[in-house]
Parts: sequence; C-alpha cells; structure tokens
Amino acid sequence: MPLTDVTENQSLNERTIMRATYMYGAGDVRIHEIPDAALQRSTDALVRIVRSCICGSDLHPYHSMPDTPEGSPMGHEFIGVVEDIGSEVATLAKGDFVIAPFAWSDGTCQFCREGLQTSCEHGGFWGGNGIGGGQAEAVRVPFADGTLVTVPGITEDSPLLPSLLSLSDVYGTGWHAARQAHVTNGDTVVVIGDGAVGLLSVLSAKQMGAERIILMGRHQSRTDLGRAFGATDVVAARGDEGIAEVRELTGGHGAHKVLEAVGHAPAYQQAVRTVRPGGIISRVGVPQYEEAPVGFGSLFGGNITLTGGPAPVRAYIEQLLPAVLDGTVNPGLVFDRTVDLDGVPDGYRAMDNREALKVMIRS
Amino acid sequence: MPLTDVTENQSLNERTIMRATYMYGAGDVRIHEIPDAALQRSTDALVRIVRSCICGSDLHPYHSMPDTPEGSPMGHEFIGVVEDIGSEVATLAKGDFVIAPFAWSDGTCQFCREGLQTSCEHGGFWGGNGIGGGQAEAVRVPFADGTLVTVPGITEDSPLLPSLLSLSDVYGTGWHAARQAHVTNGDTVVVIGDGAVGLLSVLSAKQMGAERIILMGRHQSRTDLGRAFGATDVVAARGDEGIAEVRELTGGHGAHKVLEAVGHAPAYQQAVRTVRPGGIISRVGVPQYEEAPVGFGSLFGGNITLTGGPAPVRAYIEQLLPAVLDGTVNPGLVFDRTVDLDGVPDGYRAMDNREALKVMIRS
Repeated sequence: MPLTDVTENQSLNERTIMRATYMYGAGDVRIHEIPDAALQRSTDALVRIVRSCICGSDLHPYHSMPDTPEGSPMGHEFIGVVEDIGSEVATLAKGDFVIAPFAWSDGTCQFCREGLQTSCEHGGFWGGNGIGGGQAEAVRVPFADGTLVTVPGITEDSPLLPSLLSLSDVYGTGWHAARQAHVTNGDTVVVIGDGAVGLLSVLSAKQMGAERIILMGRHQSRTDLGRAFGATDVVAARGDEGIAEVRELTGGHGAHKVLEAVGHAPAYQQAVRTVRPGGIISRVGVPQYEEAPVGFGSLFGGNITLTGGPAPVRAYIEQLLPAVLDGTVNPGLVFDRTVDLDGVPDGYRAMDNREALKVMIRS
Repeated sequence: MPLTDVTENQSLNERTIMRATYMYGAGDVRIHEIPDAALQRSTDALVRIVRSCICGSDLHPYHSMPDTPEGSPMGHEFIGVVEDIGSEVATLAKGDFVIAPFAWSDGTCQFCREGLQTSCEHGGFWGGNGIGGGQAEAVRVPFADGTLVTVPGITEDSPLLPSLLSLSDVYGTGWHAARQAHVTNGDTVVVIGDGAVGLLSVLSAKQMGAERIILMGRHQSRTDLGRAFGATDVVAARGDEGIAEVRELTGGHGAHKVLEAVGHAPAYQQAVRTVRPGGIISRVGVPQYEEAPVGFGSLFGGNITLTGGPAPVRAYIEQLLPAVLDGTVNPGLVFDRTVDLDGVPDGYRAMDNREALKVMIRS
C-alpha cells in the first residue's frame, strides 16, 4: 500500500484515513484506504474532492502499465472544496469551491506568467513526486495560489458540476487544440477522435468561428454529441477510406486545421493526410509514439505546421468559465456515467470497452 | 543529351543552341549545348539569364544522386531579361528585367492567392517536367505573369545583381524561416547553419526585431558575415557541447525560435534541444530524413511547434525588394565567388569543399 501521502500535520484533519485509486498494472485498478491527505508546506491547500473523473489518457497505462507493486495514484481532474490552507496561501479561504487543472504550477515563474503552466519550472502532475491523485477523497494541492481557480457561489449539488469538472482537463484541452491551430472564422477543421477531448475540440472550434467541422469518429452516440457541439460532417470510415472521404469533403485539398485528439500513430498519419498545404496539425492526444514522418512527403513539402502539447488549462479556466456559468455551453455533456469511488475500477472497464464516453466520480 | 527543351518556335530566337548545366550522378556536373529554350505556350516567357547560382540544396544530389544517363537540368535561381513573351502574357514586355522565384506558379489558384505559391495547383520546380534549369543561358518560364517579378531600371551591370539574385531563393527562404517562426521584437533566436540561407535567416530575424540571435556555425568567414547581418552570438561547437552552450546563453531554457537551415537529421535534433518550451522550430533546410522524434520527449511535452517548408519566395520578392534597391540590406554579400558557365562544375566542387559560401554564375 502506498504511503506517499503520510501527513505530518494530522491534527488539522478530522479524518485520519481516506480512500484513493491506485493502478498496479495493465487493467489492475484498486481502491485503497490510505493516510488522509494533509498540508505539508505553507503554500499547500487541502482540497476535499467533490467530483473527479477518469480520463482517456488514463486508458494508456490501463492498457500497457507494467506490473508495479507499489502502485501509482490515479486521477488528474477534480473539483472540490478547500478544507485547509497553509500560512502563505493568500488567494484562497476554507470553504472555497475550486477547480484544479491537470497540472499544478507555481503561478509565478516565467512560463506560468506566459500562460504555459504545464512547463512551470516548479510544477508537476498529480499522482507523482509525493502528490496524490484526484480519483480520491482529498488531495494536497501544491502552490495552491498558482494552481487552483475559485468559483464563487457553487454548491455541491450544483447542476454545473460536470461542466466545471470538464474545465479541469478535457474542455481546456479541446480549447488548446483549437487555439494552437489558430482556428478562426471560416476555417474548415477536421477533428480526429470522438472521445471527450475530440468532442470538446469540436465545441472549441465552433466557438472560434470554424465554418465547417468534420468529426472523424465511429461511435454514433458520440458523434451525435459532436454534432450538437457544432460538427457539420461526420466521417465514420477509418484509414484510407476515411481520408478519401475527408479529402472529398474538402475539395480534394484537405482542411486548414486538423485537431488530433487520439495520440496513436495512425491518428497522426490521418492528420498528415487530411491537412491542406499551409495548414496546421494540432495534437492534444498524448503521443504513444516518439518518431513519426516529418519530411518532404509529410509535413515539409506542403508547409504543414505541427503544434500542440499538454494543455495549460490553468490559463484557460477563467476565460472559459463565464460561458459555462451562464449556460452558453455545456461541456459537461461528455460525462455519460457517474460512479462512486467503489465503482472506479468498473468505470475504467466501461470506458475501455467504450460503454461509457467519460466517467464522473462522486467522491 | 536531353532534348526536353526542343523548340517549336525556332524563328523567335536568333540562337538555335544554348549551354546549360546537367547533373548525371553524384559529383558529375557537365555543361552541354542543347537546343535553345523557346516559347511553347501562350502563357510562357523566354528569359535570357543574366545571373544564376548554385544552391546549398544542389549539393544534396551532388552527394547522393544515382547515375542518371539522361541527366537532370540544374539550377533554380536566376535573374534575367525577358526576350520574348507568349500571346497571353499581360504583365511583362520584352526587355524587362525579372527575378524568377525557385518555383514557378500560375498566380491565380487558391494557394497562389493565399501566398503559398510553392503549393500552386499547376506549378512546379525548375529542371523538371520539360522545364529547364536556371544554370543555363536561357529558360522557358511557364505562367510568366504568375511567376516573374519585374524590376524597373536595372541594367546588366548593376551592382545590385547579387542581392536581386538572392531574392530568387536564399533571402526569401531565410525570410520564410523567420516569418513562419513569427520572429518578433525581443525574441531570442537560434539559427542552425552558416550557409547562405542560415545567414539570411539571421538577417531576416534581425529585420523582424529579434533581440538576440545565436548563430550556430563553425566557419569563421561565414559567421563573421552572420555577425554583420545581426548575429549577437556565435556558437561554433557542435553536438552536445554546442547545445550546452546555447542553453547556457539562454538561461538554461533555450530560445523562443529556432531557424533550421541545414536539413540533416542532426540539425533537427539540435533544434529540438535548443528550443524553449512553447517555442517554435522553423525548418527551411530541405529534410534529408523522413522520420524524426515528435513525441512527448521532443516536441509534445514542451508544446513545441514545428513549422516551415519550401519558401513561397514569390510572395516575398515585392515585399523585400525596396530595402534591397535602396541599399538598406545587402543580402548579395552571401556570394563570394563568381564563375561563368564553364566554371560551374568547379563551382560545385568549391561549394562542396566549403571553399566558397555561394557561387554566382555569369551566363
């Protein structure tokens, strides 16, 4: 049983144990009781988690993680209530409702100031380096002032919880895909992947003024949601056939912008073959490959730009929040199943089997 | 002997044969007498070449071209005088002094209208598909209205000829590198390669407001010219040592923009390791590789953008011309040797041996 979150300040908490999700190898997800999360540093906040969720990227280790006896804490998307703060935390108070981005960051380094918090000089990701995961009852949040975004007036029974939770990762990641591609009025955009990030890339492209949005995906319940988010065309075919369909839909030349929300090598190939000369491929699916074609016949000859990376969602939460709060957009529609912590292992199974699009966890 | 340029309209020309450069395999460059270039289509112009040159990219086949009995016409950079025009040519007249970009283009398709003439739907490159090369006495120019740019008032003894010739490729290509990288005021820019394109990437970055320009190159006469063009630092070391020096010069993080003007795989690796998180790698060296690292550990994790390609120099000539004409810039300084057509084979040898930076040809 992992003991990475041993508290040194037990008296601050009423609880002394909590439950959290660990992965021990491919397909092996378990819920454990571990010492409760607690403040360690003066810049920490302790957040009691209200909702968290399972990410498409969690399925990568679910497929391929080597056996790991000590386990790995899981979950990097959560919303919750501040239960305690360290002495140096200035912008948060106990009881604040907060959104946590999928990377924590100091908020003060040059990269944070530039809005690239995923490259924070002192930051990191949940579930590593002594920081717990979000698929749990509570989490110690480092650099709480830099990391967390408060949302006034939200209660634990708010119907907005799913959409607020989507700001933790998938909505901001879809936004990043479209933003890095400089999607603009009149663009034709191809979105590869009908997972939550792909669908929210559709929504984001629509918000940025794309005229035509071609969603490549083959699960009709998902592509129907994609149409609701703004997709004008759906291409269910894959491989050469799917590429030919997209090229036909785009006058033979391909799309100005291709948003790749999968991360597997065939999706990269699909992007290369559906983008227009002078166009942009923006990747937000975590690449499950290191080498790929970039030479004259793929990117260079047609002056194709390749961009993207881990979304600095911290930079986008405040920007995207108003339209979520006033109901203009409803990115929370990507959640189609809710489980409690005991249901998390089955939630992984359901997402892996494509029974569920995205599973929300009620802690 | 190639007979691709057989004229159907011999009467328009006083000459019936001309000399032109052909490559027959690695290291095998010869000058031949061939039937003179002549108009074939109503949209053609016939240009008598005043100056042409040898390109760093000509050295790629010079190193690796398989034996080719029929030979391949060489040269894609030239300036000259319009000797004749087809009946549909509207913007040119006999006697006009013109700059030819390294790709010919119709000037009317969607890509030309967008300024990406290297992806012209009906365009192509010199030396293929029945179009001759520029290292010759004359050339038939397809889509003359779309392809050529006239420069009023230039005579064949103008001291501006070298700089005007640089607009055919290397200056526009350096400009493209910097432009695609969105070089802007205050940027730190690394330029990889001290060939003509690398040096003119320095000049272009300087013109766009870069504050610090680190030139990676190890030929002092070239890097001295790089300093004259605006380089603030020169790193002569290669490999790990050179990368460490650049990182030290950039506070450990790398540069905002890296302009890669070489095209070999090690230069790509160098770019990946000297670019800052959130930065842009812009390639204009023709890649001599197809696959390269693009995954989490190279591009994705740091949100690095990879851009570049064959420069649509046609889009830049008019923009760059005024500063050339009024002497604000002198990109022609990259030419450090001039030969006549008979001297072309030795010119290749001299560039290959790094005796010469860039060889100009007096036709």
